Amino acid sequence: MHRLMRKVLLWFARNAWLRERLPKLPFMQRAVRRFMPGEEIGDALHAAVDLQVLGIGTLYTRLGENLTEASQAQAVTDHYLALLDRITAAEIDGEISVKPTQLGLDVDEDACFGHLRTLAAAAEAHGSYLWIDMEDSSYVDRTLDLYQRLRASQPRTGICLQAYLRRTAKDVERLLPLGPAIRLVKGAYDEPREVAFRSKKEVDANFLAIAVTLLRESRARQIRLGLGTHDVELVEQIASHAAAAGVTKDGFEVQMLYGIRAKEQRRLARSGYKVQTLIAYGAAWYPWYMRRLAERPANVLFALRQLLPG
Amino acid sequence: MHRLMRKVLLWFARNAWLRERLPKLPFMQRAVRRFMPGEEIGDALHAAVDLQVLGIGTLYTRLGENLTEASQAQAVTDHYLALLDRITAAEIDGEISVKPTQLGLDVDEDACFGHLRTLAAAAEAHGSYLWIDMEDSSYVDRTLDLYQRLRASQPRTGICLQAYLRRTAKDVERLLPLGPAIRLVKGAYDEPREVAFRSKKEVDANFLAIAVTLLRESRARQIRLGLGTHDVELVEQIASHAAAAGVTKDGFEVQMLYGIRAKEQRRLARSGYKVQTLIAYGAAWYPWYMRRLAERPANVLFALRQLLPG
Repeated sequence: MHRLMRKVLLWFARNAWLRERLPKLPFMQRAVRRFMPGEEIGDALHAAVDLQVLGIGTLYTRLGENLTEASQAQAVTDHYLALLDRITAAEIDGEISVKPTQLGLDVDEDACFGHLRTLAAAAEAHGSYLWIDMEDSSYVDRTLDLYQRLRASQPRTGICLQAYLRRTAKDVERLLPLGPAIRLVKGAYDEPREVAFRSKKEVDANFLAIAVTLLRESRARQIRLGLGTHDVELVEQIASHAAAAGVTKDGFEVQMLYGIRAKEQRRLARSGYKVQTLIAYGAAWYPWYMRRLAERPANVLFALRQLLPG
Repeated sequence: MHRLMRKVLLWFARNAWLRERLPKLPFMQRAVRRFMPGEEIGDALHAAVDLQVLGIGTLYTRLGENLTEASQAQAVTDHYLALLDRITAAEIDGEISVKPTQLGLDVDEDACFGHLRTLAAAAEAHGSYLWIDMEDSSYVDRTLDLYQRLRASQPRTGICLQAYLRRTAKDVERLLPLGPAIRLVKGAYDEPREVAFRSKKEVDANFLAIAVTLLRESRARQIRLGLGTHDVELVEQIASHAAAAGVTKDGFEVQMLYGIRAKEQRRLARSGYKVQTLIAYGAAWYPWYMRRLAERPANVLFALRQLLPG
């Protein structure tokens, strides 16, 4: 049942006709507010101030779709440069996360790398950090290549890896010599069985094993690990392995989305975990929102409730 | 439902009144044969010959209960010394596994250590191997101490660790400097929630994380790892992590009980895994058999079927 609903939602995310129409419906616009403070940078920064008071850092991403023209990538880069200025001006402890396809990976890979380098240099100058997000499995090789090239000259950069991909354990071994920063997530695309683990049990076990590997390696080399999951039990299980290996719970970060398990985010921050909230904003939220619903079918009920009168 | 049945079976295992009577029932004696070729050493060795032809090694354990007198421990030691002679005489690739309480751990810890050292030396002389089994959580500290002392002088010795125990990740870190041999099992006692993970998901994830840790460490130091589980999917998930870290599938062993997933044992051996079958024998099989049923409630049906007329 959950698997079917997930498939339907991911199809909703990709379907061009729905993509044009669904986001315009007022109930959808109300529903997405659960996960997004607003479409503007200002909305995101405003939400960040409240979190900062609680000791919770923030990560920003502007929602956008794959680009088809190189000039659009320059506009996205300029947008993130402006965002870094505004984060600094607002005295917020914030980092940025970008999708390579928004920087033109499909159009011109070298230009995409140039944009990443520009953003990484700006992030460093601002004392911030650049995270490269990961998209569906067809992008993994190219995204890893970009990160490997980038990390050679830009230390304040990280990459997202997906625990549901069978290849990820191998990718981790490849990245280890770089002393990487890794944001580990479970994964939210509709991948075939040959490519990705399908059961929650297998994905969780893979997530734990990879996180433990990285935390044990972090004793010997510079590694930054962000646990991009809302599965608090899994986080606590990882923390207990980390403690066994002599890594305290401030030796990694817990990265959750704005609006999901907000109480748990505060509780973790109070109990000594380093917590970062990922805040998304922008007009192109529709496919992203569908993937979030697919991750937690329980949220679909919340969305449907917005259909009912006040 | 499974949890309840498990609790009942583990209570059956401990109850003194049932322990006296149930093993005498003919249907129980028929049922246990699924997991045990017979009560005598000869039965075990006979079964081993058939396995050896298929490239499957064997591990032997004589089922026994906790001892109350020191002299009984000497008799158990003598039994295993005779077993080692018979393994060698039969030209079988076999190793032995002993429970510290059968060697008098409850009665005299130093004498127990002496017996272990005697058995380890004999195992080495025979080109065999001595595995120390693990019992309920109240024995873990003492058993680890024994192993640590033993391993200092006896390299051909290993210890069993249980992935359902929360402490095991920490115990692994403690043992790593020894270059240990570890037989990792899920765990089959009825432990409280504070001590042990209770959900299959958590136990499996812990098992995977610990196995991956050991396999990655095995690249840098002498470590022997036996996966004592019938969960073939978990074994394959571990093998894939191992491959990612450059450890081939003959870099560890798969250890399963006689009679459980026998076809899978043969399939794994054919496809390049190192497989060992653990053969139990002896008269005191009742509590052990109850724990095996508790592990796989599906087996209870098989046992009950023995009640029906032939």
